[in-house]
Amino acid sequence: MPKKVDRQKRRTQIADALMRVAAEQGLEAVSLRHVAAEAGVSAGMVQHYFRTKDEMMTFALDVVRERNQIRVTDAVTHLGAAPSPRDLLQTIIRTLLPLDEVTRADGRVALAFLAYTAVRPPASAALREETEQMVGFIAGLLPCPDPENAAAGLLALMEGLGVYLLGGQYTPEQARRILDSHLDRLFAAAPDRSGETVTIRPA
Amino acid sequence: MPKKVDRQKRRTQIADALMRVAAEQGLEAVSLRHVAAEAGVSAGMVQHYFRTKDEMMTFALDVVRERNQIRVTDAVTHLGAAPSPRDLLQTIIRTLLPLDEVTRADGRVALAFLAYTAVRPPASAALREETEQMVGFIAGLLPCPDPENAAAGLLALMEGLGVYLLGGQYTPEQARRILDSHLDRLFAAAPDRSGETVTIRPA
Repeated sequence: MPKKVDRQKRRTQIADALMRVAAEQGLEAVSLRHVAAEAGVSAGMVQHYFRTKDEMMTFALDVVRERNQIRVTDAVTHLGAAPSPRDLLQTIIRTLLPLDEVTRADGRVALAFLAYTAVRPPASAALREETEQMVGFIAGLLPCPDPENAAAGLLALMEGLGVYLLGGQYTPEQARRILDSHLDRLFAAAPDRSGETVTIRPA
Repeated sequence: MPKKVDRQKRRTQIADALMRVAAEQGLEAVSLRHVAAEAGVSAGMVQHYFRTKDEMMTFALDVVRERNQIRVTDAVTHLGAAPSPRDLLQTIIRTLLPLDEVTRADGRVALAFLAYTAVRPPASAALREETEQMVGFIAGLLPCPDPENAAAGLLALMEGLGVYLLGGQYTPEQARRILDSHLDRLFAAAPDRSGETVTIRPA
């Protein structure tokens, strides 16, 4: 099926152009015309692959999400076969935070998308499901009382750190310290489980 | 000085139009032309009051910030003369979260602005200063170890809850529970200070 592969490749190329436009000039600069110019293709070509701006935005966020998934898997793999729950969470969250230039560019796209979906709730259905899964996963790792709310809070804290990193309110150094301090608090509650490890299964 | 008052009034009227456009159609729909149409004035009139879109956005966020300040002052006043630090923080943060339709509309403007400033760091200088002041204020109320990082984390958690409320990932009920659970954890650390109160001085 070479045709399908080409289509995905071309869509990704256009999404990359969209992300460069969004990262450099903001979401409001993202138009068919701008994205086409950045990708070096015609506006008609962009319309051939994406019928609407919504479709293009959703696809771009999928690309960001996929890259994050790869980064997380890679970082977790480097932790070895049996990291502690705290190390695992710290690594996953640090990997997802916009702490360097590459992840900042992706983070700007994600933030632009969040602002975009805030006025178009249906577009955020995928985000809702993903958040729910993450909360469940994190809750399973936390030894503290009320793990469901603590997990949802940790995720919100991560999101807020991302926003403040992109806005320059917090430096990368500060964000790391704030995260570590928060993890200390969550894991201090049950020191008896501190020797526990998580078995990483191959994907 | 009736002229100055008129100018401020007209600017606020235009900023309100901007916020309605941003709240209903997203930041990318905010243009001189759109805002002028929504405000029922000419594009030339908008340009007379705001030279650039940046200036218009910054002013709109100032209006949101001012409204938040009034809401917070009002809510804190209802707590009486000597609320506990926990009640004070809970009230302030609940007031700032987009938990109802009015604060959601303001929240969408704030989020759009955050996405906007993420690609224009100089525009967020005021936000940075405000965040630093908030961190200092909250740190003074927290009885837990490492209050500076705990305060910065609480602020990030609030920001993330706001983002997830606007995106529909968390319901208002969930957000309240997550916040309460987090405050429980921060205040559980030092039960000996639980009887403490904060004296509210008239502004």
